[in-house]
Amino acid sequence: MERKKLTGSELLQELSALPGWSLYEGKLHKLFTFPDFVKAFGFMCEVALVAQAMDHHPDWSNAYNRVTIDLVTHDLGGISTFDTELARRIENLLS
Amino acid sequence: MERKKLTGSELLQELSALPGWSLYEGKLHKLFTFPDFVKAFGFMCEVALVAQAMDHHPDWSNAYNRVTIDLVTHDLGGISTFDTELARRIENLLS
Amino acid sequence: MERKKLTGSELLQELSALPGWSLYEGKLHKLFTFPDFVKAFGFMCEVALVAQAMDHHPDWSNAYNRVTIDLVTHDLGGISTFDTELARRIENLLS
Amino acid sequence: MERKKLTGSELLQELSALPGWSLYEGKLHKLFTFPDFVKAFGFMCEVALVAQAMDHHPDWSNAYNRVTIDLVTHDLGGISTFDTELARRIENLLS
Repeated sequence: MERKKLTGSELLQELSALPGWSLYEGKLHKLFTFPDFVKAFGFMCEVALVAQAMDHHPDWSNAYNRVTIDLVTHDLGGISTFDTELARRIENLLS
Repeated sequence: MERKKLTGSELLQELSALPGWSLYEGKLHKLFTFPDFVKAFGFMCEVALVAQAMDHHPDWSNAYNRVTIDLVTHDLGGISTFDTELARRIENLLS
Repeated sequence: MERKKLTGSELLQELSALPGWSLYEGKLHKLFTFPDFVKAFGFMCEVALVAQAMDHHPDWSNAYNRVTIDLVTHDLGGISTFDTELARRIENLLS
Repeated sequence: MERKKLTGSELLQELSALPGWSLYEGKLHKLFTFPDFVKAFGFMCEVALVAQAMDHHPDWSNAYNRVTIDLVTHDLGGISTFDTELARRIENLLS
């Protein structure tokens, strides 16, 4: 996969195929809610593995059963193909 | 919960309510299979959290998408109420 | 351990024994930096286990090699004995 | 890195540079001991990330503070360059 910043129209098209994801402060953003901390952190372990394998890591936070993920490619100055690919792989973990 | 070794009849009754678990080499035993390593290790992270909270830890192994769990209470010399409780909590993670 | 909100003077005394921790927006706060994501997330796995065993969970975030931890006891409306105890156990993980 | 089965002499040379690793039942083998379960499982989380990034996974087991790792490349019928590379990366986690 080519690693490149998305144009505005590419980004809008990608967003339409990523349910629950939004643009927030220039990042691809989603809040995930789980029954409890155990399920939330199990999800984080899975995301960590997927992210490390891509060598592309989220900005994310957790409070008990909630996990907030923000994706951006700092060195490209915006949202890139790697961010939307990581978002897709994160969605696949939950399907 | 009282921490005590189960009698033979108690163990048989508990086993009947734990689908897929068997007695193997004196331990409460089950093999779990997942689609891939990511899902297998995510499950292990959840089990680790549940086990640490009980201060009761499994003997377990992993190879790619397979996780084998063996439960026994070494200091009581057999399968205890903590083993069947941990087995139940592990099952709940997957329900 | 008693679970109770700390008085101002108790909190100042506790803080003096927790190197690198500060008060930030009403929470007990520290930023941890690691060589890379792998070490940062390994640390998070350890903290998750410690927190789950206490049934007391951090508000925390991660970006690559940085982990930010904020501790507060929401239902007590401030920083409690559980927050300082969790901070101590987190420090012990790194000693 | 080329993915290929090691010859006997290559394997012996590699082993001499991997302290604590041995050949056991045709696999590259090492037992790691930690102070407790939390540190053992934190190590496993780090190894899991490293392994997933290589798409090369260990056969491993854990009991409380002990982690046993066995490395072999099943489809090549022996120990490969990926096994020794994974062993090196695991050692680096502990250095």
